[in-house]
Amino acid sequence: MPSREAVVDLLGALAYGQLSAFDHLADDAGLAPTLAGRAEMSSMAAVEFGHYERIAGRLRDLEAVPEDSMAPFVAALESYHSLTQPSTWLESVVKAYVGDGMAADFYREVAAFVDDGTRDLIREVLVEAGRAEFAVREVRGAIDEQPSVAGRLALWARRLVGEAISQTQHVLADRDSLMLLLVEGTGDITGVAALITRITDRHAQRMVTLGLDN
Amino acid sequence: MPSREAVVDLLGALAYGQLSAFDHLADDAGLAPTLAGRAEMSSMAAVEFGHYERIAGRLRDLEAVPEDSMAPFVAALESYHSLTQPSTWLESVVKAYVGDGMAADFYREVAAFVDDGTRDLIREVLVEAGRAEFAVREVRGAIDEQPSVAGRLALWARRLVGEAISQTQHVLADRDSLMLLLVEGTGDITGVAALITRITDRHAQRMVTLGLDN
Repeated sequence: MPSREAVVDLLGALAYGQLSAFDHLADDAGLAPTLAGRAEMSSMAAVEFGHYERIAGRLRDLEAVPEDSMAPFVAALESYHSLTQPSTWLESVVKAYVGDGMAADFYREVAAFVDDGTRDLIREVLVEAGRAEFAVREVRGAIDEQPSVAGRLALWARRLVGEAISQTQHVLADRDSLMLLLVEGTGDITGVAALITRITDRHAQRMVTLGLDN
Repeated sequence: MPSREAVVDLLGALAYGQLSAFDHLADDAGLAPTLAGRAEMSSMAAVEFGHYERIAGRLRDLEAVPEDSMAPFVAALESYHSLTQPSTWLESVVKAYVGDGMAADFYREVAAFVDDGTRDLIREVLVEAGRAEFAVREVRGAIDEQPSVAGRLALWARRLVGEAISQTQHVLADRDSLMLLLVEGTGDITGVAALITRITDRHAQRMVTLGLDN
């Protein structure tokens, strides 16, 4: 069984991930060319906040203070966001689908290694309801109108992945409990490699969905 | 009975009021000195978004397109927000309580003049659950620590009220349907005066609650 410390770390990272996703999605909604698009991205932000509240509730159940549990992860997540600040609406849409999707896959994988209650809660709050349809509509529509957009957005997606991996490595290097959870959970280095393959496969699938080269 | 146009205008103004409140509260959450304060203001933003969704749903029931119904009110509300951009956490807290509170009182009053279903919905989404306690804790705590804060915040509250009144006048001058709703609803100019008195009384009460001079 993983240590309480590892579970609290995992929930703390996820909680801050959702609080910062709320913040950045709400911000990016301002890039929308229409009120309808703005409302749609604002809605994703509000959903993230609801998830944050549930994860924070779980932390309180574990007698952890959510603010304290999140604190170790603030720097890495803020670095990710500041290095991947979208400058256009389409960049923000790709980030919301590709970047947040990859993060969700990672949390889902690691959740397999903790107690049932925590795992079920994490998987429940990571459902990407409707986000794919929204991203497909916006991105494919834009590519139909102007095919050159696809190349730029594919590059952007690569940057998102690069920064996400880089910040995840920083966090793992810094938090022994999470590194241990990952290594013990997957069994060995082959297990870690298989986990990474699953995550990159799902990422590639998202790129195909959007009509972008991986 | 008020015209459908007046009801759609009222709901459109309120919907955009809530969408923009979401946006600005989410933004202002970044001014919070603690993660707990940030989460609390983000939570208010998420609540506003939930209310926006219900009002937008009502507009759709009336066969109106929410984006079209909101459009006439975007400029006035954005002017209000850009003229009252908080530069400190306490300013944002006072704005969330005093500014949004006054707007809510206005909508609640005007809602008295429309059909029961619309009125009940508007009153339901305008409940200020918990906002007073939050504002009192933050503002009174700050005044206890540094009494000179009170004078600056009282000035700030006056500015919020001034800009809110000014933008409301612009909207009413521009939208005959709403002006008519207000004048016919209150009965006559004495009725309008009584409505304004009720709103300013409730505002004065909020200032007392915060420990600020009106």
